[in-house]
Amino acid sequence: MRAVDIIRAKRDGDALSREAIEAFVKGVTDGSWPDYQASALLMAIVLKGMNTVETGWLTDAMARSGDRVDLSHIPGIKVGKHSTGGVGDKVSIVLAPLAAACGVTVPKMSGRGLGHTGGTLDKLESIPGFRVALSLDEYREMLGRIGCCLISQTATIAPADKTLYALRDVTGTIESLPLISSSVMSKKLAEGSNALVLDVKCGRGAFMQRPADARALARSLVSIGTAAGVRTEAFITRMDVPLGRAVGNALEIAECIDLLKGHGPADLADLIVRLGTRMVRLAEKAATDDEAAAMVRHALASGAGLAKLREMIAGQGGDAAVVDDPGRLPSASLTRMIAAPRAGFITSLDALLVGRAAVALGAGRDKKGDAIDLSAGILLKRTVGDAVTAGEPVLELRYNDPSRLEAAVALATQAVVVGELAPAAQPLVLGWVHDNGETMFVAGM
Amino acid sequence: MRAVDIIRAKRDGDALSREAIEAFVKGVTDGSWPDYQASALLMAIVLKGMNTVETGWLTDAMARSGDRVDLSHIPGIKVGKHSTGGVGDKVSIVLAPLAAACGVTVPKMSGRGLGHTGGTLDKLESIPGFRVALSLDEYREMLGRIGCCLISQTATIAPADKTLYALRDVTGTIESLPLISSSVMSKKLAEGSNALVLDVKCGRGAFMQRPADARALARSLVSIGTAAGVRTEAFITRMDVPLGRAVGNALEIAECIDLLKGHGPADLADLIVRLGTRMVRLAEKAATDDEAAAMVRHALASGAGLAKLREMIAGQGGDAAVVDDPGRLPSASLTRMIAAPRAGFITSLDALLVGRAAVALGAGRDKKGDAIDLSAGILLKRTVGDAVTAGEPVLELRYNDPSRLEAAVALATQAVVVGELAPAAQPLVLGWVHDNGETMFVAGM
Repeated sequence: MRAVDIIRAKRDGDALSREAIEAFVKGVTDGSWPDYQASALLMAIVLKGMNTVETGWLTDAMARSGDRVDLSHIPGIKVGKHSTGGVGDKVSIVLAPLAAACGVTVPKMSGRGLGHTGGTLDKLESIPGFRVALSLDEYREMLGRIGCCLISQTATIAPADKTLYALRDVTGTIESLPLISSSVMSKKLAEGSNALVLDVKCGRGAFMQRPADARALARSLVSIGTAAGVRTEAFITRMDVPLGRAVGNALEIAECIDLLKGHGPADLADLIVRLGTRMVRLAEKAATDDEAAAMVRHALASGAGLAKLREMIAGQGGDAAVVDDPGRLPSASLTRMIAAPRAGFITSLDALLVGRAAVALGAGRDKKGDAIDLSAGILLKRTVGDAVTAGEPVLELRYNDPSRLEAAVALATQAVVVGELAPAAQPLVLGWVHDNGETMFVAGM
Repeated sequence: MRAVDIIRAKRDGDALSREAIEAFVKGVTDGSWPDYQASALLMAIVLKGMNTVETGWLTDAMARSGDRVDLSHIPGIKVGKHSTGGVGDKVSIVLAPLAAACGVTVPKMSGRGLGHTGGTLDKLESIPGFRVALSLDEYREMLGRIGCCLISQTATIAPADKTLYALRDVTGTIESLPLISSSVMSKKLAEGSNALVLDVKCGRGAFMQRPADARALARSLVSIGTAAGVRTEAFITRMDVPLGRAVGNALEIAECIDLLKGHGPADLADLIVRLGTRMVRLAEKAATDDEAAAMVRHALASGAGLAKLREMIAGQGGDAAVVDDPGRLPSASLTRMIAAPRAGFITSLDALLVGRAAVALGAGRDKKGDAIDLSAGILLKRTVGDAVTAGEPVLELRYNDPSRLEAAVALATQAVVVGELAPAAQPLVLGWVHDNGETMFVAGM
């Protein structure tokens, strides 16, 4: 099957055969398809689409392009968790030990921050000594012994996705539902999960800004997982405002520790319980959602989740004492407050602008390979819906490099909008798609 | 202007700016755009199109990507000629010396055969000693002294087109009106013509099989030429049956000599007079079409065209004695007749199948760089509309390599269709598009 014939078929809007899709992924993996043929096919896929069957085949071929982790030595159903990425999204770092404390095995490979969104690996690396680059053997051992582990994807996990993603980034072919879905799910299928809870972010600070796109992505991801025999559920959650009260690597780890101590913002704690409940159910550790939610809440209240975090940090070479003394985390030397411009209610705290302000302070990367400042970031002293007086601190910028301040202040100032009336409360969970086809979307979604 | 932003703009259906198109062509020419970005943009152009203004800018940028031949040392209007390619299409080899004999300077660079269509350069190389690879200085000198010259494109003519064409060939991005038009016209604009007569082939043996596509291509080519200040006219001519009675390199040169001696098939001679008439008019060597046609016919009848061919062959290092003794052309050692399967009238002689049969005999190439047998080919002993008896010879296959015969016989046999009733006569010229916007299409086009 010649590459050019496969490209022409997709160009003409035909559905590709499984054989054609496998030839493409194999060619990308072993280099026998030159980049220029791969990018022509990618553009044809962006413009002509792929049906759900093709997308499933593409995902499967990408998942099988490298190692598929075998976790059969661990009894029970392993439940993965993935977020499409947002600002202040530290949920995985709380949820993995929490679910593990409920007896769920949580295999999870994560990514680094790029653009305005942070990355789980960067956050974890703010813990002194924490190693994210474990071998697959170490990963399997940790999962068996502790039940959770947060590592970077090894080079052998879905290598076709790595090649394709790099190519998509420079050829204007990122924005495609089948390509986005297959990229996410190929890695998840390779990581060793038997079930998945997905958090599809939607809003100003998310990749999917429009509800219709988030719904379509959620449906696509669930359909791929289900077809692959992995029970998959997707939540769609709001990402207009940063999640929680901290944005930035060490600041977010401190917030995670707070959350596992039963403190932390109520809406974020609610979301964590909600997602954790479904992980416990998918792992068949509870018969009802109420029972599962009670288990998760107990793991929070009893300190069992915190103990798992301590175990996980120690297991990955980190300084577990940060759990008891967050002062051991790196801390920025300089602070600047962004105040409310007038009295009233905060009506908007744009997640995209706050995320970009944090990157400007050094907390993230504009392009791959940029160095980051693990201690830099932003604390939300007030958030949307709060009443403020004129001049009251809303955002606290933490930084070390004074040359970075000006750009960050401009962005952060723009992010804070104060109005006269209190805004209507907005639910954090906008909807969900279950693997049995059940879907729920709040009004307006 | 980043490549990825240009690609994204076209992907989203935007018209590209002149600056963006020039950045693309410059990037392709100097290698600063990697192939994978060029192919992504090409696919986006195939699927999202380009308007006539963008196509004009693309053509101009490609024409200026290398040398643009300066023929200002030769007085008068230089008139180029181009055919989009067909089976048995030897018109340029007759027309260039014929128009030159009427005082028209005819700058012409040609291509080689690929697939089922033949190439002017291959045909000329069947003349012993004939050199097609002249330098631009030799080209200019020949045009000044003789008035015509048929050479291969030099490496410095529209190098962006060469790079793009090679990429399009392997990325499924050939089939695009703006890309096809700009490829053709960029080379013509660079060759030094001030006016152009184009022959857009339409039918079974042509690149454009559907009349609507041929009309669109003719209009696009004329619009590009006109916008570039080159008076351009396009004829659309039928390519369902091979042109003339010979298919294959040396066989077609012999037919060209016959035509210039006033023999040869009447329909082909008519087409040559028709195209020659417009070349003479565009060169402003005659005041009316009737006057121009009389000049062309006189150049045929007087032997002035034949004398020019002799001069041109000699000027390009070839054995000019072939003009008087075509027996000096290479000749195949073996012959096989394809007979009429029954008595009746020939209703079809499929140009595509005859072209592929000639390639099977060795007269053409399946892929670039294949060696060809200059003496192999097919003679049409009868053509569409002729009455035949059962077993009467219709096609004469000429070849040297017996291992090639079986495939050729199968194709050639399939090409010959005999029916009970004489088919309606079909005009060779299906329409034309003039640079003043005048168009004519025969009924059914």
